Amino acid sequence: MEKFVIKKSNIKKNIFYAQSGGVTPVINATARGIYDAYLRNKKIFGKLYVGKNGIAGALDEDLIDIETEKKSEIMKLIHTPGGAFGSCRIKLKDPRKNQSEFKKIFDVFQAHNIGYFLYNGGGDSQDTTLKLSKFFRENKLDIKCIGIPKTIDNDLPETYSCPGFGTVAKYIATSTLEASLDVSSMSNSSTKVFLLEVMGRHAGWLAASSGVIKGLNNNAPHIILFPEIAFDKSKFLKKVKKSVDDDGFCVIVSSEGIKDKKGDFISSTKTKDSFGHSHLGGVAPVLSRMITESLNIKVHWAVADYLQRASRHIGSKADVKQAYIVGEESIKLLKKNISDVMVTIKRSATGKKWRVGFVKLEKVANTEKKLPKNFITKDGFSITKKCEEYINEMILGEDIPPFKKGLPDYAKLQLKLTKKILK
Amino acid sequence: MEKFVIKKSNIKKNIFYAQSGGVTPVINATARGIYDAYLRNKKIFGKLYVGKNGIAGALDEDLIDIETEKKSEIMKLIHTPGGAFGSCRIKLKDPRKNQSEFKKIFDVFQAHNIGYFLYNGGGDSQDTTLKLSKFFRENKLDIKCIGIPKTIDNDLPETYSCPGFGTVAKYIATSTLEASLDVSSMSNSSTKVFLLEVMGRHAGWLAASSGVIKGLNNNAPHIILFPEIAFDKSKFLKKVKKSVDDDGFCVIVSSEGIKDKKGDFISSTKTKDSFGHSHLGGVAPVLSRMITESLNIKVHWAVADYLQRASRHIGSKADVKQAYIVGEESIKLLKKNISDVMVTIKRSATGKKWRVGFVKLEKVANTEKKLPKNFITKDGFSITKKCEEYINEMILGEDIPPFKKGLPDYAKLQLKLTKKILK
Repeated sequence: MEKFVIKKSNIKKNIFYAQSGGVTPVINATARGIYDAYLRNKKIFGKLYVGKNGIAGALDEDLIDIETEKKSEIMKLIHTPGGAFGSCRIKLKDPRKNQSEFKKIFDVFQAHNIGYFLYNGGGDSQDTTLKLSKFFRENKLDIKCIGIPKTIDNDLPETYSCPGFGTVAKYIATSTLEASLDVSSMSNSSTKVFLLEVMGRHAGWLAASSGVIKGLNNNAPHIILFPEIAFDKSKFLKKVKKSVDDDGFCVIVSSEGIKDKKGDFISSTKTKDSFGHSHLGGVAPVLSRMITESLNIKVHWAVADYLQRASRHIGSKADVKQAYIVGEESIKLLKKNISDVMVTIKRSATGKKWRVGFVKLEKVANTEKKLPKNFITKDGFSITKKCEEYINEMILGEDIPPFKKGLPDYAKLQLKLTKKILK
Repeated sequence: MEKFVIKKSNIKKNIFYAQSGGVTPVINATARGIYDAYLRNKKIFGKLYVGKNGIAGALDEDLIDIETEKKSEIMKLIHTPGGAFGSCRIKLKDPRKNQSEFKKIFDVFQAHNIGYFLYNGGGDSQDTTLKLSKFFRENKLDIKCIGIPKTIDNDLPETYSCPGFGTVAKYIATSTLEASLDVSSMSNSSTKVFLLEVMGRHAGWLAASSGVIKGLNNNAPHIILFPEIAFDKSKFLKKVKKSVDDDGFCVIVSSEGIKDKKGDFISSTKTKDSFGHSHLGGVAPVLSRMITESLNIKVHWAVADYLQRASRHIGSKADVKQAYIVGEESIKLLKKNISDVMVTIKRSATGKKWRVGFVKLEKVANTEKKLPKNFITKDGFSITKKCEEYINEMILGEDIPPFKKGLPDYAKLQLKLTKKILK
């Protein structure tokens, strides 16, 4: 293996932080947690650099010194959705085949005296953290690597929950309740079925979250469709009909990623992202047409898409708290010289406090946690009491952002790049 | 014309109130305004009956005595979306051709000593109020009729605004801002275009509302598509490309009802409602495919549908206020012996207070107020300063409902029917 020329330095090492993958309504709360903890530890750490557009910031030497941003705007990160520093969908090449990206990142880190790498993302992004940490270890490069969890899909293993999920779950449960009140009031002489498509390619956590409204407006949602359960058209249509017959209306929440028995998506397009995932969307019109054609019932359908993923205006207090403490914890771990791990969320014994822990990166990269079997009812259309209790914890409490002139007052960063050192 | 046998009665006359047409997030706030004003005037009025499922309640003798509901739940109507008493899409037959429905309604009203008819709806629903008021007048029947405005579409004439619009406008503006923050953070290596489909069959008020976020995240929304402007594919695609080239991303908000130069909907289905309107929905996937095929750019799209119409969790204070006072005013008009009019919203000279007025029903039934020409920019893709100022007034202030266990605490009514008198 090629040797690296490592410049010795007595000055404090700098931190590199970046946001990766599909963003969440609270990923910036994690950035704020990091910033606050960093400020408390400026004796130990040098600068806090943020990579513009995730790992692309390291590859392209696009670094933002966080202290060049207005402090008042950094404060607003606690309640601002999206990825304020830009995110990415970039999968690093296999280092056994091509080390050029890794060398480039190391060169940038060495040029900017970076000794700490914090990467904020889901399963695919933790693959990046893992590959980099292995590369640094194998080449005896002293750069500590910490993964910080984030994903609205809630599908990271080894953590009780994922920051981002609680807020989106709260949004989906609230929106399903509200739309159910709408369709139940229209059902006597007009629309009888309302169908909502939510995100979730392989795991049904988000669709499941709608289940907590059961009892608040009759039996809505009457049907939840999970990627974990093979879609059965005739069973589905029978259940729609029965719900309309019994309650006068039917509310359906479907994961985008539902598949038939053969494992084919009910709806898919040809577009794929750089991880090779199909870009889904559009299962709602397919199911809607199915119902109208078979049962001759008027259906209204909605596709939440980014509205759910960015729904910070209805933040879950529990979720914002989780997002903040995983950020804080990443700095604490660096202080303790811990590396090559991802921060995790732990539930306290009483269930009233959120704690943090950590797990080896190998255990989380490229792995998806599906809904446990005992979270889905036997008929495959609802959630169990156990699942309900879990979701209830995640959506607890409201964290509403401040408003200005009728609109949420979200952060506006400058994103001024640090002067490049490399050619 | 057939004569009616009118029973004389010295006891106080009862009120009949019903909700009609597509519901709104604040139509129940109007019901609450009526209830509060009714309680203050019990010396004058008998019972307050609410028709179950709009005018169907009068046709089927399905009446709810509001005082049989729990007072604590009635109080919650101020913050509960949907139509708590059920709504309808029923168009009464032309009374010159068929009077049976009118006679049926009169029989029910006479049986229950109803002397006041309050109908809460949009342009189609005010057609019902107008037909009934004419029928009562022509037959010298002493039943006073008041229309109460409601429509998220904001397309009723003769009123400064329509209760329901402000909250949905606030939801759309907020959601567009949030989703724009999402797509701008993904745009470097993934999705570059986000497209949101909102309601609006013939008038672009709701799509226009997204325009108030201009400047909060670059130029988002880069494109607004109005039903008032003929859709021009090549101009549209050119603008999408330019926005992505200039800002790195493009946010589009489209009315469901956009049409081409020939007047054909860009997207339409075969389903029609009882007013003969096409049931639209699904313009987003059509436009999304258009962009991907022509420009080879990854697009995410959302269809807000009922999520917008029931979005009470982000209520506009201005809107809730308007909804409440039009309800209150309807009772005040009855006290003054005024009939055959619809309550209207008036803006005070300073623009800081909402006042009420009224207008003859003939002027509002079956009429749609489109966006004024000076509300749309010359290129047809944005709103003018004038429009922005108008929308800003509508979305001002937050009226967030109380939450319980992480979810909005919405009213749950019993809807117990009054004993039928007629066979």
